[in-house]
Amino acid sequence: MTDHSSGSFRLEQDMIGELAVPAEAYYGINTLRTCRNLSFSGRPLGDYPAYIRSLAFVKKAAALANRGAGGLNAEQAELIVAACEQLIEGRYADQFPVDVLHGGGGIGVNMNVNEVIANIGNVMSGKKRGDYAPLHPVEHVNMSQSTSDVCHTAMRMTLISAWAGLKRELDLLHALAKVKASEFADVRTIARTCLQDGMSVSYGDTFGGYAALFARRTGALDEAFGKLRQVNLGGTVIGSGLGASESYRRIILDKLRTTTGESYVYRASLYDAAQNPDDLAEVSAQLALLAQALLKVAKDFRLLSSGPEAGLAELVLPSVQAGSSFFPGKVNPVVAETLIQCCFQVLGCDRTVQAALEHGELNLNVWEPAAGINVLEAAQMLAAAVRQFADKCLRGVTVNRERCAVYSRSLIPLVVEMKETYGYAAVSSLLKEAERQGKDPKAWLIQGGERNGASASGLGERMAEDD
Amino acid sequence: MTDHSSGSFRLEQDMIGELAVPAEAYYGINTLRTCRNLSFSGRPLGDYPAYIRSLAFVKKAAALANRGAGGLNAEQAELIVAACEQLIEGRYADQFPVDVLHGGGGIGVNMNVNEVIANIGNVMSGKKRGDYAPLHPVEHVNMSQSTSDVCHTAMRMTLISAWAGLKRELDLLHALAKVKASEFADVRTIARTCLQDGMSVSYGDTFGGYAALFARRTGALDEAFGKLRQVNLGGTVIGSGLGASESYRRIILDKLRTTTGESYVYRASLYDAAQNPDDLAEVSAQLALLAQALLKVAKDFRLLSSGPEAGLAELVLPSVQAGSSFFPGKVNPVVAETLIQCCFQVLGCDRTVQAALEHGELNLNVWEPAAGINVLEAAQMLAAAVRQFADKCLRGVTVNRERCAVYSRSLIPLVVEMKETYGYAAVSSLLKEAERQGKDPKAWLIQGGERNGASASGLGERMAEDD
Amino acid sequence: MTDHSSGSFRLEQDMIGELAVPAEAYYGINTLRTCRNLSFSGRPLGDYPAYIRSLAFVKKAAALANRGAGGLNAEQAELIVAACEQLIEGRYADQFPVDVLHGGGGIGVNMNVNEVIANIGNVMSGKKRGDYAPLHPVEHVNMSQSTSDVCHTAMRMTLISAWAGLKRELDLLHALAKVKASEFADVRTIARTCLQDGMSVSYGDTFGGYAALFARRTGALDEAFGKLRQVNLGGTVIGSGLGASESYRRIILDKLRTTTGESYVYRASLYDAAQNPDDLAEVSAQLALLAQALLKVAKDFRLLSSGPEAGLAELVLPSVQAGSSFFPGKVNPVVAETLIQCCFQVLGCDRTVQAALEHGELNLNVWEPAAGINVLEAAQMLAAAVRQFADKCLRGVTVNRERCAVYSRSLIPLVVEMKETYGYAAVSSLLKEAERQGKDPKAWLIQGGERNGASASGLGERMAEDD
Amino acid sequence: MTDHSSGSFRLEQDMIGELAVPAEAYYGINTLRTCRNLSFSGRPLGDYPAYIRSLAFVKKAAALANRGAGGLNAEQAELIVAACEQLIEGRYADQFPVDVLHGGGGIGVNMNVNEVIANIGNVMSGKKRGDYAPLHPVEHVNMSQSTSDVCHTAMRMTLISAWAGLKRELDLLHALAKVKASEFADVRTIARTCLQDGMSVSYGDTFGGYAALFARRTGALDEAFGKLRQVNLGGTVIGSGLGASESYRRIILDKLRTTTGESYVYRASLYDAAQNPDDLAEVSAQLALLAQALLKVAKDFRLLSSGPEAGLAELVLPSVQAGSSFFPGKVNPVVAETLIQCCFQVLGCDRTVQAALEHGELNLNVWEPAAGINVLEAAQMLAAAVRQFADKCLRGVTVNRERCAVYSRSLIPLVVEMKETYGYAAVSSLLKEAERQGKDPKAWLIQGGERNGASASGLGERMAEDD
Repeated sequence: MTDHSSGSFRLEQDMIGELAVPAEAYYGINTLRTCRNLSFSGRPLGDYPAYIRSLAFVKKAAALANRGAGGLNAEQAELIVAACEQLIEGRYADQFPVDVLHGGGGIGVNMNVNEVIANIGNVMSGKKRGDYAPLHPVEHVNMSQSTSDVCHTAMRMTLISAWAGLKRELDLLHALAKVKASEFADVRTIARTCLQDGMSVSYGDTFGGYAALFARRTGALDEAFGKLRQVNLGGTVIGSGLGASESYRRIILDKLRTTTGESYVYRASLYDAAQNPDDLAEVSAQLALLAQALLKVAKDFRLLSSGPEAGLAELVLPSVQAGSSFFPGKVNPVVAETLIQCCFQVLGCDRTVQAALEHGELNLNVWEPAAGINVLEAAQMLAAAVRQFADKCLRGVTVNRERCAVYSRSLIPLVVEMKETYGYAAVSSLLKEAERQGKDPKAWLIQGGERNGASASGLGERMAEDD
Repeated sequence: MTDHSSGSFRLEQDMIGELAVPAEAYYGINTLRTCRNLSFSGRPLGDYPAYIRSLAFVKKAAALANRGAGGLNAEQAELIVAACEQLIEGRYADQFPVDVLHGGGGIGVNMNVNEVIANIGNVMSGKKRGDYAPLHPVEHVNMSQSTSDVCHTAMRMTLISAWAGLKRELDLLHALAKVKASEFADVRTIARTCLQDGMSVSYGDTFGGYAALFARRTGALDEAFGKLRQVNLGGTVIGSGLGASESYRRIILDKLRTTTGESYVYRASLYDAAQNPDDLAEVSAQLALLAQALLKVAKDFRLLSSGPEAGLAELVLPSVQAGSSFFPGKVNPVVAETLIQCCFQVLGCDRTVQAALEHGELNLNVWEPAAGINVLEAAQMLAAAVRQFADKCLRGVTVNRERCAVYSRSLIPLVVEMKETYGYAAVSSLLKEAERQGKDPKAWLIQGGERNGASASGLGERMAEDD
Repeated sequence: MTDHSSGSFRLEQDMIGELAVPAEAYYGINTLRTCRNLSFSGRPLGDYPAYIRSLAFVKKAAALANRGAGGLNAEQAELIVAACEQLIEGRYADQFPVDVLHGGGGIGVNMNVNEVIANIGNVMSGKKRGDYAPLHPVEHVNMSQSTSDVCHTAMRMTLISAWAGLKRELDLLHALAKVKASEFADVRTIARTCLQDGMSVSYGDTFGGYAALFARRTGALDEAFGKLRQVNLGGTVIGSGLGASESYRRIILDKLRTTTGESYVYRASLYDAAQNPDDLAEVSAQLALLAQALLKVAKDFRLLSSGPEAGLAELVLPSVQAGSSFFPGKVNPVVAETLIQCCFQVLGCDRTVQAALEHGELNLNVWEPAAGINVLEAAQMLAAAVRQFADKCLRGVTVNRERCAVYSRSLIPLVVEMKETYGYAAVSSLLKEAERQGKDPKAWLIQGGERNGASASGLGERMAEDD
Repeated sequence: MTDHSSGSFRLEQDMIGELAVPAEAYYGINTLRTCRNLSFSGRPLGDYPAYIRSLAFVKKAAALANRGAGGLNAEQAELIVAACEQLIEGRYADQFPVDVLHGGGGIGVNMNVNEVIANIGNVMSGKKRGDYAPLHPVEHVNMSQSTSDVCHTAMRMTLISAWAGLKRELDLLHALAKVKASEFADVRTIARTCLQDGMSVSYGDTFGGYAALFARRTGALDEAFGKLRQVNLGGTVIGSGLGASESYRRIILDKLRTTTGESYVYRASLYDAAQNPDDLAEVSAQLALLAQALLKVAKDFRLLSSGPEAGLAELVLPSVQAGSSFFPGKVNPVVAETLIQCCFQVLGCDRTVQAALEHGELNLNVWEPAAGINVLEAAQMLAAAVRQFADKCLRGVTVNRERCAVYSRSLIPLVVEMKETYGYAAVSSLLKEAERQGKDPKAWLIQGGERNGASASGLGERMAEDD
């Protein structure tokens, strides 16, 4: 944000009155009022370059459509397009000081973008900031649009691009889980149910389960994000399109496609689009499900690598840094834990999105921007944390084969194995006899199996093969 | 639950010791222990007849498959099948006293069903309850199964059937919303954004938005429930199928299909199925999204029917009962409010399901039964509340056309209309002039429009047409 | 609920029209309409005897106050009092069929109680059900009251009594935790941070931590429930007391006190009381915090008792029943898991209460009954599950002293111990030297400590004392 | 964060290996590893100056206590104190690049602070960065401490100071609500229950309800934050104090008090302190309750100021900026909406804190830092949004007295008034008669009241007085 304390100012007017805007600022009075009236979260729009980029794409497409529909003259359209391209390149990032979570349905975000584009364009054409000619923020940059359809559409574009990033990391995660499932296919250990010893299981199967989970959640997210291609640009405030000419509405999505290289379609009812951001909430719910899936796997990693002496100590996670300021030599599962904390944040984002959906009413859900920003943050945080977990934890995880071999030969797996061979009743009576005679049940079982005949050595061999 | 205080008892044994079971009870010692050790919610299994039915279908299919695979003799299989059929018909509902939310991954539910089937079958064959021959609850009724795959599969079957019920009501809701959209197509009123007056809108479009919302949420639920057809019967405890013969596993899903008339398939990885009940959580999240969608519409109904004098008073909801013990003649939107309270409960169910998913670990998520029951309750409550709302509220809702006509001719819709015709600048200057001269802005605008020429009467006519 | 399908009916009227009420029913037309219009949850009022009891206390106190204020004649007051006393004794429990979660702010609950009391009283005086003389449900039983203040007050009374029950169990839990802390004071094991081996710790200290946690949460709950003694009986609908005479309002809380033996006071603003049920939500939040505290301890129990061979195996939980229908001899931590599932439900209840609070508006929060019922259920479920956990798990838990002794002598505790004695640098260089020479670090450290002089044997002794 | 791409580097070592640290950086290798391994949220520690300040206070107090206990020499203690004072003044804010939400229980935060203090001190004493003499980050700056007790204590100190800020705004909010209650004491309007017309009410009473709500929630928060004065500095990792001498532990809280001017005490059990951050979660729950309370009031403001023509239009909120990029002249309740969106975020933070509490285990809850940061953010956002709402909305709100007067004379208030005077039966029969004759019920009631005798004019007068 331009520093207000030094330098000179220019005066701008709005329906409320007059305000001194920093002379060098490309934003104007509406932006400044939003900053002063509606800031609380410490998250300026400028921190969301992907969103600014999408907003600029929308404004560019609208300028082209307005030109096509005869609403803008050639100079105006060209200036808007040129200004938008600068924003798309990432310039002027410090000109977006409004709090992205301000109320009013995103009005401050839209006006901030309108003002910056107008001023960039006007300066290009030799005018001063604040002149608002040949480009006026509302009459030209916002022509045929409302905050409602601009932010709705730009947020969905942003999320689709965020998904591309997250999907890349999830695909990596899935691929690595499959590699590990292969690598560990021959490692048998013990399964635990209710945290109690169960039958033996191959680590390949356990990691195969992880891979299946990642694939399923990725697929479900892909579908949910895919639905965001249904937008409402041209529906203006409530979906009626009032304020946008028919010719503009006929071409605007086409302009958006040619501008961005991505295709978007209309929702079946644009009234519905203005009323109901449940598509965002669905994405959020899916991100929460992903978070809960990742939580499970990351917790498994912590538990299975617990120890080294007084824990399960089956998995060995790569050491990436000292784990303690207190214990020399202690290594903690910090990468898995960072993923877990990321997942906690994602659950928090989802709670916020739920509130935004629940509190909507009538013809326009004005909490949609809050929902959108929280979904975006969740997706971005997950992309970073999943990448780290894949690269610095999953990729290098190894198995303590010796320990696993011991576990897989515990009593319960042995009981299960013998039950399969000799039947439940025989095994039960062997166990009771061991207890009666005060013998070690495991030794007794193996011996008993041997006494019971031919397959005894087979059993021993099978147990050995598990190693 | 059979009364323990009167009548005689029989003694049963388990690994812990001996217990007196009511002589007349078809359940046995494991059920009784579960009741005594693991009850807290006041929700006996007997209150969930649809779940018992699915469990009986699973047991029946398993008996047939075990017979086919050679594990059971003909008498045993026939007895189990006959007992299951009685449960499927809804008999013995008082023999399922275990708390459905007990811990241990559903062991008490499975054992309750095993014991009841064994005792029914044994009594049929002339034995006494508690004899456990020719049918033993674990060795025969539970043959080739574990609690894990039995409850997993039966719960999904139950939910698919609950969805059929809920979907029927949602389809009705959607159909009625479309009927109303048609009926109200010519009623123009005012739209509100941020609860402030906006442009005019047709009630047809508003209800069209509701219909689109209902259709979308129903479609998404249909997909989510559809995924529950992927089950794991035959995977036994952790997905390995250990304890079930290959021949059993080859035919069990087929038996389930012929028994129920519904088809089920295996998940890609049965290990994954045991580890991850995220399919249930996805359904739960979708039910929560539905609840939030319904919440929105029900709140709209309350707000739009507020009054009669000091509210918006646009919609008139059917009067179904006195609204107050205090105000003579007061009618409240009680049906809409009941739907809202149902939605609150559904959000609560989803929170519980989230916890169950989050806290899973290793080879088996033992909280899955808690998740399943909460999803089931959410679906059942929604079916009832949606039905009521459709029948007793939406079906009979009418519009106060007079009031809507007045609203649709408010200043802001007029300003928007004139802005379309005469341009933003012209309208703004007319408004400023009105303010300067202290005139009523609405009258001034219409007059100004007329002064501005030919389209004036056109404007008047259009405003009139809105009525 | 009285069976409608058989027997005869009587006709009753209300503002909507006429309805056939089962002849034997003590409830009337308003109850019946509520059942037909507003049922979805499967939870009839009759399932909440404690709530009915509180409602009857309120009605009794109101009758006495109305008599004192001159509103009721002696016969009417006596009949109401007599009818209420029957309800307080638990009679007529089948006469309360309304869904406790119906909308409308509890109108159906209040009318159900009003009708049953009126009919009981009238029958006592020789009239027929449905005559509504000498007692009319609204004019006499509900005199000077509204649904708003009746349900608000009765729910708080119910919760205070539910708290007495829950507190008893929490006190037991706390007492047992302290007993165990004492019993295990001399058992040293290893502490784990990030699930990795840490320093040694006494089980007395770990259980001392549990005791402190239970005490703190119990104390916080006691304060939160204590605030529920602030009620609004006499404030009628919105807190103004309109509809209740001054003389009634002067004495009603006193009558409530003499009737119940419990004292209640007014909130500072009765308008606030009608607007804001945040006192209920505060109790709910505290119950959720308790649930999360219990969750932690129950999860610790599961983890610390994991094994027996392939887990931590430090704690041994009492065996209460067979843990598996699959593994002979497997015992699972089912009581701890039942507590965990109870906690999941409590988190769900809290989510519902949050929704009820969030969606309140203007002069009366009509979702308060939904909040109250969910708080009540949470408290009741916790009381049952905590009792079970205290009695059947905590009370009998023992420690595997041998295993703990081994853990407490792991490398990391040894390193910490030696660091205390010889300094960080000395220990680090010993460890590096061990690594360089390929020696076992633990043996090397002890030996190194010895080489370093006098305190070596002291270290050995201290290590030995840990056993 | 110091730019890595330009300039020179120094090499540092840790247990993992060697890393190039920017030559100018005051942080070291542990910080750098945390940045590379554990970043996902985009929230560097440097963005939390209040937390850094508290951490520096802890380090300063520890240095003084270590000096007092003989662990540090005079030079070392003085250098640490001097470095801490620079951090307390807010210098070196760009030297804290670690993600505050990284996993590992806060290790990266503690090491970042340790390294920066060590390097500042060493540079002061003429050494180079990276020399780590005379001050070593772990051996001297972290002496007698662990990440666990340092972060635990510093976070609580930070939150206590954040509460002072939030409380100031809440007190203002409360004071303004009382001023408005006074200002509007004579304005009668209509109350609404279930959004339907109810009895008349004074705006003084409605705002009195708001004031009572704000006071109660502020009081409850004050208690919850007050409990954070119970800290564990000196308990080191798990509460045993191992690693800190007795003399250090005897004086450390005293040093903290003299250093900060604030007093802190120990929790009853420091083991409990390490295990259970439920005190943070309690604060979080209280912040969520505050958010839900504010949500209610802000929603009331939106609803009561809806219109101007087609809404309730009772309240007039100050206009602070243009509400729309589409409708000329539209003013929206943007400040109230910003508060609402803030509340949504706070609910999200609470969800995250709940997850952090739920997932804790054994001797140390390593998710505590995530909980602390989310509580801090919630408190800071609320302080900003409440301030804005108080200043820019509540302070300037006015009442449309004309509109309120009309509302207060609606039919239902009139019916209630007459019921009080003439009785329920008389009013009901008058209403029925009006309906039978097709008369306007309001006119009829007033007329009927007059016919019924002496008090008729009294009624008229009373109605007039309501204006």
